[in-house]
Amino acid sequence: MALIVHKYGGTSMGSTERIRQVAKRVAKWARAGHQMVVVPSAMSGETNRLLGLAKEVSPEKATAQTMRELDMIAATGEQVSVGLLSLALQAEGLPAVSYSGWQVPIKTDSAYTKARIASIDDARVRAELAAGKVVIITGFQGIDGDGHITTLGRGGSDTSAVAVAAAMKAAECLIYTDVDGVYTTDPRIVPEARRLATVSFEEMLEMASLGSKVLQIRSVEFAGKYRVPLRVLSSFTPWDNPIAEESVSGTLITFEEGLNMEQAVVSGIAFNRDEAKVTLMRVPDKPGIAYQILGAVAEANIDVDVIVQNVSHDGKTDFSFTVHRNDYARTMDLLKTQVAPPLGAGEVIGDPKICKVSIVGIGMRSHAGVAAKMFRTLSEEGINIQMITTSEIKTSVVIDEKYMELAVRALHRAFDLEAPQAV
Amino acid sequence: MALIVHKYGGTSMGSTERIRQVAKRVAKWARAGHQMVVVPSAMSGETNRLLGLAKEVSPEKATAQTMRELDMIAATGEQVSVGLLSLALQAEGLPAVSYSGWQVPIKTDSAYTKARIASIDDARVRAELAAGKVVIITGFQGIDGDGHITTLGRGGSDTSAVAVAAAMKAAECLIYTDVDGVYTTDPRIVPEARRLATVSFEEMLEMASLGSKVLQIRSVEFAGKYRVPLRVLSSFTPWDNPIAEESVSGTLITFEEGLNMEQAVVSGIAFNRDEAKVTLMRVPDKPGIAYQILGAVAEANIDVDVIVQNVSHDGKTDFSFTVHRNDYARTMDLLKTQVAPPLGAGEVIGDPKICKVSIVGIGMRSHAGVAAKMFRTLSEEGINIQMITTSEIKTSVVIDEKYMELAVRALHRAFDLEAPQAV
Repeated sequence: MALIVHKYGGTSMGSTERIRQVAKRVAKWARAGHQMVVVPSAMSGETNRLLGLAKEVSPEKATAQTMRELDMIAATGEQVSVGLLSLALQAEGLPAVSYSGWQVPIKTDSAYTKARIASIDDARVRAELAAGKVVIITGFQGIDGDGHITTLGRGGSDTSAVAVAAAMKAAECLIYTDVDGVYTTDPRIVPEARRLATVSFEEMLEMASLGSKVLQIRSVEFAGKYRVPLRVLSSFTPWDNPIAEESVSGTLITFEEGLNMEQAVVSGIAFNRDEAKVTLMRVPDKPGIAYQILGAVAEANIDVDVIVQNVSHDGKTDFSFTVHRNDYARTMDLLKTQVAPPLGAGEVIGDPKICKVSIVGIGMRSHAGVAAKMFRTLSEEGINIQMITTSEIKTSVVIDEKYMELAVRALHRAFDLEAPQAV
Repeated sequence: MALIVHKYGGTSMGSTERIRQVAKRVAKWARAGHQMVVVPSAMSGETNRLLGLAKEVSPEKATAQTMRELDMIAATGEQVSVGLLSLALQAEGLPAVSYSGWQVPIKTDSAYTKARIASIDDARVRAELAAGKVVIITGFQGIDGDGHITTLGRGGSDTSAVAVAAAMKAAECLIYTDVDGVYTTDPRIVPEARRLATVSFEEMLEMASLGSKVLQIRSVEFAGKYRVPLRVLSSFTPWDNPIAEESVSGTLITFEEGLNMEQAVVSGIAFNRDEAKVTLMRVPDKPGIAYQILGAVAEANIDVDVIVQNVSHDGKTDFSFTVHRNDYARTMDLLKTQVAPPLGAGEVIGDPKICKVSIVGIGMRSHAGVAAKMFRTLSEEGINIQMITTSEIKTSVVIDEKYMELAVRALHRAFDLEAPQAV
């Protein structure tokens, strides 16, 4: 008997048949006596279809004004979903009601297409729950201070669900998706990859930002900030599985350090092959250089991931960073024509065929030699490391793309991730 | 330099290419110095697609609660349209902004799927117009007193446009559609049918209710109530036609009696073959009988059109009415099993193969013998009249469906509708 938030992704909502399955699963939880709030995504493919139409009428670069309209258009995908899910629940004999973000309201800032949630008013939702209804709330969207519709960006429904769970002080937020939890690494690369029963909030944050697509990173940040117990689990198990079984399946994201004390040093191997590397050679090493380079890149709306600058020789240093592979050509052009000449830098070189591989684990904080073990493992496989960055709980290397699978498999073995997880 | 409302139907908004054409046309009016408010429908087929999805998850009969969700779902069609049209206008270099019904707000009652507009707040729209923007408002929908989305029923965008024009005190409301005006009758039946340059509000009301699908009847009622100058015209003329030409094309719905004084006695021939006729024979003729019969029919949510009861013989009378052909079987069953027995009525007979043909004309008020001429014309063609009803400005007959084309053509000729219209 608790207040539970369920979130269902686009694939889980992918057809009317799937939506009926979701309704049956939610009804099972409601009939067990729980107060249920459900946050569904748009039906899979719908957001792309809508933005495709927008692109057809407005092929030009987005402006603040066009982004407002993109949000107006894209927000309809989830509105259809909540209405359909409410109908499906009613067809199951359960009272249900749907709400758009603006109706709750979920208040956001005015950063169209990537708004951030400012506050959620829980009064209306609580009143509907008290009246015995399942409440279904659109993911991905809200309303700004001037009454305009905003969206939270790709994957924003995860964030909506966690934010609603936080506002409602829900006992748990269950993210139903097309994978059955968080794995030590991608099972398509390493067949021995193992599902983690628990993962710490900090590790999940690193894994999310490292390209593990299970959860939107902002939803993890939100869960951390408001201590929302978050579980990732599969929506493709039979809907009538016992709740007792379902509520311990998948992966629980935990916040109590204690829970992880006996955990393996490294929890998982993340990787990302969407990146490209660029280097400005022999840049004069003086204050303000990093800003002069990356300021120009940021102005061109290019997101930078890894940044590496090493010590200088003869007053010159090499400055490297990675960008999304789609931005590679544009970045190279920008550096060559606008950044390098005024700086008096040397050659601009780049490589789009790289990948980033990271080991993530909260145990790295207290264990020396973890990074060294990573480097030794890669060395034994004859893999050259091009860049290295580290944080408290992860170490990332940039290597040649062709070695990615080899590196992930070797690291997975070296850190004993095939072994059953200690709890 | 006036405030003009344009309304574009689903076919006009049927593709992104069409939407770009609409934007070019609106831009032409805006650049000529007019303040423009545009009310588009959903892209053609979209409302049906959305309601089809709803039917798949909820095949049962609609309730108040499911109808609320149907409105939540269906309203998204127009929301996508307004966003796309705003983008298309911005791509034309024109400042534009879209608004949903709830954002304006357009306030309605809570009769989901067939709500009625209660009031429109014009402050927000005026502010955007004053800021030099084209304002695009969703047709078909509004918001009720409790903040729920409502829709106005099929064809509701016409009503939205006229209501917005009334609230804004627009100089004119132009309804762009896939026909180029109101005709003396359907040109597919009578090739000589002629477009009317003007038609009176009352005549338009009769034609709309008689099955001429050009305008939703409630929009005509609204136009009449608030004296909104209304013009029906084609959206398939070249978008760059001169405004001077466009603004006198189509058909103007007029309110000043004087304009029609010299008009032909009969303005048009309307017809409808969607109906079926049922008769309760030998009903005891006593007070309350009509209510006992039609009350039961109304309770079954069956709409009744023509009702005819003639004088009685021996205390018994025959009671006939027409219903939509889709409701024929259900109506016959209801009468036979539940209505006729307690009344002590005789046989229940029916005929689904009938049609209704009407002559409509404001001149009938002051001209005797118009109905007689109609009956003579039909008689000369050997067409038997099954039922007759009349109002101040129309006479309708129910005849065998197979004579429909013959009747329409003969009446069109008899009332000289091929001749150019006197203005």
